[in-house]
Amino acid sequence: MGELRGEDREAIRGFVSQELRAAEEAFLQGRYEEALALVEEAREEVRRRGWWLPQISEEHGGWGLSLEDFSTVAEELGRSPVGHLAFHCQAPDAGNMELLEEFATDLQKERFLAPLLAGEVRSCFAMTEPGRPGSNPTWMETKAERRGEQWVLNGRKWFSTAADGAAFAIVMAVTNEEGPKHRRASMFLVPMDTPGMELENLRVMGERGLGPMSHAEVSFEECVVGGDALLGEEGQGFVMAQHRLGPGRIHHCMRWIGICERALSLMCERATSRALTPTRQLADEGVIQGWIGESRIEIDAARAFVRETAKKMEVQGAPATRQEISAIKVFVAGVLQRVLDRAVQVYGAAGLTDQTPLAYWYSHERGARIYDGPDEVHRRVIARAELAKYAEGRG
Amino acid sequence: MGELRGEDREAIRGFVSQELRAAEEAFLQGRYEEALALVEEAREEVRRRGWWLPQISEEHGGWGLSLEDFSTVAEELGRSPVGHLAFHCQAPDAGNMELLEEFATDLQKERFLAPLLAGEVRSCFAMTEPGRPGSNPTWMETKAERRGEQWVLNGRKWFSTAADGAAFAIVMAVTNEEGPKHRRASMFLVPMDTPGMELENLRVMGERGLGPMSHAEVSFEECVVGGDALLGEEGQGFVMAQHRLGPGRIHHCMRWIGICERALSLMCERATSRALTPTRQLADEGVIQGWIGESRIEIDAARAFVRETAKKMEVQGAPATRQEISAIKVFVAGVLQRVLDRAVQVYGAAGLTDQTPLAYWYSHERGARIYDGPDEVHRRVIARAELAKYAEGRG
Amino acid sequence: MGELRGEDREAIRGFVSQELRAAEEAFLQGRYEEALALVEEAREEVRRRGWWLPQISEEHGGWGLSLEDFSTVAEELGRSPVGHLAFHCQAPDAGNMELLEEFATDLQKERFLAPLLAGEVRSCFAMTEPGRPGSNPTWMETKAERRGEQWVLNGRKWFSTAADGAAFAIVMAVTNEEGPKHRRASMFLVPMDTPGMELENLRVMGERGLGPMSHAEVSFEECVVGGDALLGEEGQGFVMAQHRLGPGRIHHCMRWIGICERALSLMCERATSRALTPTRQLADEGVIQGWIGESRIEIDAARAFVRETAKKMEVQGAPATRQEISAIKVFVAGVLQRVLDRAVQVYGAAGLTDQTPLAYWYSHERGARIYDGPDEVHRRVIARAELAKYAEGRG
Amino acid sequence: MGELRGEDREAIRGFVSQELRAAEEAFLQGRYEEALALVEEAREEVRRRGWWLPQISEEHGGWGLSLEDFSTVAEELGRSPVGHLAFHCQAPDAGNMELLEEFATDLQKERFLAPLLAGEVRSCFAMTEPGRPGSNPTWMETKAERRGEQWVLNGRKWFSTAADGAAFAIVMAVTNEEGPKHRRASMFLVPMDTPGMELENLRVMGERGLGPMSHAEVSFEECVVGGDALLGEEGQGFVMAQHRLGPGRIHHCMRWIGICERALSLMCERATSRALTPTRQLADEGVIQGWIGESRIEIDAARAFVRETAKKMEVQGAPATRQEISAIKVFVAGVLQRVLDRAVQVYGAAGLTDQTPLAYWYSHERGARIYDGPDEVHRRVIARAELAKYAEGRG
Repeated sequence: MGELRGEDREAIRGFVSQELRAAEEAFLQGRYEEALALVEEAREEVRRRGWWLPQISEEHGGWGLSLEDFSTVAEELGRSPVGHLAFHCQAPDAGNMELLEEFATDLQKERFLAPLLAGEVRSCFAMTEPGRPGSNPTWMETKAERRGEQWVLNGRKWFSTAADGAAFAIVMAVTNEEGPKHRRASMFLVPMDTPGMELENLRVMGERGLGPMSHAEVSFEECVVGGDALLGEEGQGFVMAQHRLGPGRIHHCMRWIGICERALSLMCERATSRALTPTRQLADEGVIQGWIGESRIEIDAARAFVRETAKKMEVQGAPATRQEISAIKVFVAGVLQRVLDRAVQVYGAAGLTDQTPLAYWYSHERGARIYDGPDEVHRRVIARAELAKYAEGRG
Repeated sequence: MGELRGEDREAIRGFVSQELRAAEEAFLQGRYEEALALVEEAREEVRRRGWWLPQISEEHGGWGLSLEDFSTVAEELGRSPVGHLAFHCQAPDAGNMELLEEFATDLQKERFLAPLLAGEVRSCFAMTEPGRPGSNPTWMETKAERRGEQWVLNGRKWFSTAADGAAFAIVMAVTNEEGPKHRRASMFLVPMDTPGMELENLRVMGERGLGPMSHAEVSFEECVVGGDALLGEEGQGFVMAQHRLGPGRIHHCMRWIGICERALSLMCERATSRALTPTRQLADEGVIQGWIGESRIEIDAARAFVRETAKKMEVQGAPATRQEISAIKVFVAGVLQRVLDRAVQVYGAAGLTDQTPLAYWYSHERGARIYDGPDEVHRRVIARAELAKYAEGRG
Repeated sequence: MGELRGEDREAIRGFVSQELRAAEEAFLQGRYEEALALVEEAREEVRRRGWWLPQISEEHGGWGLSLEDFSTVAEELGRSPVGHLAFHCQAPDAGNMELLEEFATDLQKERFLAPLLAGEVRSCFAMTEPGRPGSNPTWMETKAERRGEQWVLNGRKWFSTAADGAAFAIVMAVTNEEGPKHRRASMFLVPMDTPGMELENLRVMGERGLGPMSHAEVSFEECVVGGDALLGEEGQGFVMAQHRLGPGRIHHCMRWIGICERALSLMCERATSRALTPTRQLADEGVIQGWIGESRIEIDAARAFVRETAKKMEVQGAPATRQEISAIKVFVAGVLQRVLDRAVQVYGAAGLTDQTPLAYWYSHERGARIYDGPDEVHRRVIARAELAKYAEGRG
Repeated sequence: MGELRGEDREAIRGFVSQELRAAEEAFLQGRYEEALALVEEAREEVRRRGWWLPQISEEHGGWGLSLEDFSTVAEELGRSPVGHLAFHCQAPDAGNMELLEEFATDLQKERFLAPLLAGEVRSCFAMTEPGRPGSNPTWMETKAERRGEQWVLNGRKWFSTAADGAAFAIVMAVTNEEGPKHRRASMFLVPMDTPGMELENLRVMGERGLGPMSHAEVSFEECVVGGDALLGEEGQGFVMAQHRLGPGRIHHCMRWIGICERALSLMCERATSRALTPTRQLADEGVIQGWIGESRIEIDAARAFVRETAKKMEVQGAPATRQEISAIKVFVAGVLQRVLDRAVQVYGAAGLTDQTPLAYWYSHERGARIYDGPDEVHRRVIARAELAKYAEGRG
């Protein structure tokens, strides 16, 4: 297993704040192509330092960190909107790599996983649909019908992050409408240039974005793929999705903590440099101090909660940790929103501009309380598990 | 005084939802030029129906509504991001009209106010500065120095809404640095094509916008204007700004209530049309019902509070209502943020797209708790007034 | 109709803070008998000044104020836990008077209403049951069975405020279990000394209280009353209860605003008199200022909302104002809890003692979000009314 | 070091819920003497099972648990208001034991510590003063003046928990008013029967309580103690108080988590047993589920945060963990208040009675956000530490 040495954390923080600064700036100013080119350059350095693919085992060419050590790295990377991309552990690729590592055939691995790990191509994940609630993944409209050796896909997906420019998508589609609820869907590996597949970037929070910084609507109309496009077993789509979501959610939490730390550090920088009058600073204001204190408290609570969950997950696996993952997902997303809100308020008008990443995160991470399951659904899941302990013997 | 007939409210709501629909859609999709052209067309109809300039007296060509009646209209217009523009009561023009009506010379009125009222030109207001806190309007860097008959402006302003394409700016600048705190600044009428004045649209919440949907940074470098550019008396800038801000804040509150009503109505539409399972709707969820109930409660409280303040303001004037205006500003901006947050959550991923105005408002109205005085400053102002009643006789 | 003269408000505030001070102090220290005796004395003065029964029409011996004027008085009285009692407009007597005025026969009025109005006796209301949710008033266990000319009551009620020492109770009981849901129950006038009726004061927030400052559990076991005990018509219990609850709720809101004003004024007094260091006061702390500012804002919003509702109620009646009454009930109870919480925090340890009424209100008014319908039920009622506008045509 | 075996947790939970049930019930009903007698009985069983003094080293007759293991025990004990008392780890005795263990002379240990550990006597701690803010422990009015071999104490303390019936108090008093701020005060061991010392139980949240369930005001008037009454060194009072408060705060946090768990379990019991209609339970309500889910999330976050802090404290000591202790103190007290609030709301009117410990905790644990430092002071402490990292080089 890879090792996170004591000095790595400091080194990564420095790398993110210095080597990625220009890429971050271009990104915040909407110069996405330039940002991507700069990230591509930075990746060279990441590889050289042995940081590439921190979450992936060494035999697959990664750094091979434990989940707990990865949380340290993910937090540092989360301090910049381009951090994860530089280390190649960004969603949705990271989740797709895990799926492929676990469920792909050797041929599929060679064709899809190898270039993905190498960073030669990007991928996307197409599950959520505009017409059906994402919180009910057993109820989908997109269908894959077997015709001879082939599968024919029809339907619409959206919020396929990074579909724009990706080489392939992992697509979830219903293969047996009459089957038991959790056995209806299957996953397919679909190259983006497959005829019958179209995509258009959505305007999300007012922006269409580009490449990995975009979310697409993907439609399938008589889109034909071969029998070898099936990922894993038929009917296992739901189970595999669950398998993918657990780690995905905890990865988001780790990244959000990084965002929070950056926001807190921006708040402090602003507070100690912004004069309110010739003799009084923002940092002298009791209300501002209160926000900074509360943010530090909430962030540290979030980190302790996520680390404990990571430890349990590493020992007992994702399924046994399902409820805890729901819990940290809701908790950290809430902290994230509150900390960002305070940071924007500390900056005032400047907080709405592209001078800092705050405006971007404030608007684009509003999705954190929605994607991978909205707060209210996770709370209900947790409540039902809790209530089940008391309702025994109930008719 | 103009009259709001019973049927007007209904008619305006219909107009906003139908006649302005295409403009709103273009606006939400970022097709600003198209949106502006459609608004321009709609203005013809507005004039024909006698709705033009609802807040302006009949002798100046407006509808001449009382503040209380205007609140009804403003709320209906607030339901669309292009509503106020269509009726020509949008910020910052509305506030500028008031300033000019009250303080401009006859010549200034002819040159600046007349075409503004007619909707032939637009204007902007340049007060906030990047380097100084907007919450301390007695402390500015922009200076106007008298040189013979002329004034020479130097300094930088930002968040000058709608500067892009405006015909002129009302600029606040220090004319007497050594004067008493509230007598240091003056206001100037500066045509946008004056040499030495430059503007660039800021990227606000990720967007540069266009025309009235933009906020600019405006710099003055040896920008020379004539002696007739002075608006009102020298040294009266702060007093005039206060004069302008009171009504400006209550107008924002009225508009925000309109936004809230639209958001609530979107929530209800979504809840009654979105299926969670084949047999269960969003509207059946207790949590969603709770958000809808709470939103209705908060919005109605906000409206009652604003109307009471409007009545007092009409009778006793803005200065006597200063504390109440601070109060509604904080209160309604808070309701606005919470209602929008709930509405986005009800929509889920769709709430982040341009299908509804929710994403736009969620990100762009984050500024509501900042512009015209951040929450914490208004709370402090109110607290000090409250505490002053108790601290008498204190050494 | 009675008149609230300009000077009355000031006079009542003075009366409450001075003439009722000793009674309040005794009350806060748990010396209830002494407190009641002092209130009884103060009532003489109240009568003399023409303030007696402010909410009751002049022909019934009251002051005869409009609901709006009463709100001013109720707010002043609410500033002390013994204020309403002194003016004889306390719950549950005030609500019972209304019920009797409207529904009692002449004989019943003579026997029950006359001494109640005169302040010679007290009364209670027995509706809520320990075994059934108060939020579902159509589902009760207490039954009244007709036997010949008489009615026989069996069942248990609780939270019958002021039952201890009351002369009679108005009891809600099921008279027709098979009837339509809203026609099952009837109301009965039951003297407290009726055999088969027993009461015991509950320990509420750790205290049993005494007399009007207590809440009892009341049990009926083969409790026989005459045919003339029926109040109003058989089967009208639910309708009459609704009739009683509307005004009851708005009266509570008015009183709560008074509590909030007192709490805010205590906060300010403390802040301007408590030294943190030899040179710094609580009032100098930005966080404390923030709480004071926010409290002033919320209280003023609450008052505007309640007054608007009172006006509508006076013109259109309680049934047409039902949704607004639910809304103010939730809103003002929330403001109450937050303001009290802040006030306690400003006082620190002293806020937990009987030095001020804050500790009493903090614990005993926790019930405000529960009695007369819990928040969540009112929110749901409002949401359903809101959603109904959108769901038309739904299957 | 003592060991917490796997089965202990379960056993302690059973003990608390069964063996302490009668004591808890008596306590909740205000029958304090009976409650104390029942606890005294239970202590025999506690000793027999080896659970006595779980936080104290084995050589001093305790169980000798690590701080982390103690957190498990403390949480189980926290589920009942009489839990800690039964295991003899209640405040303020536990903190006093630590002080005496560390700073007392052998003679003092024999006289004060030995009987305290044995459970033969109780003690109290007298630091907070009515006239001075507890948040500024360097600024006190109580003085100890040396007269020959003796010390003479004058001043007033309050909120001396459990002073009623205690054998002795540890009293903090100023011994050198002119000394450096943190060297002014000293601690004294004062037997409660010392002439010149008087105590009266405060009415806290409406109750005077009794014995360990009470808080007293303690006054000293020319109260003379011997030279051997000094605990530790002269001028070390502040330092010793800080030493005592760190562990004290984390012990409170552990206990609060126990309260939260009990409250959550009560919520679930209520929700699964309370019918709203003949066919619908509280547990079926989405809003109730939301509260249960959120409570589980917040409690688990709190526990993870406290455990992490306990680990750090055990390794690095209390001073190095000061900021974290402030953070958990604010965080867990907040969770406590919110969880209790929800639990009361789920119970409705029953939640205000003595049927459950909820009403007691709701009112009496309001102090949790005040005692041992109010929220706002801890937040400020944390903020200043945070800001200090950024302000270096500032003039």
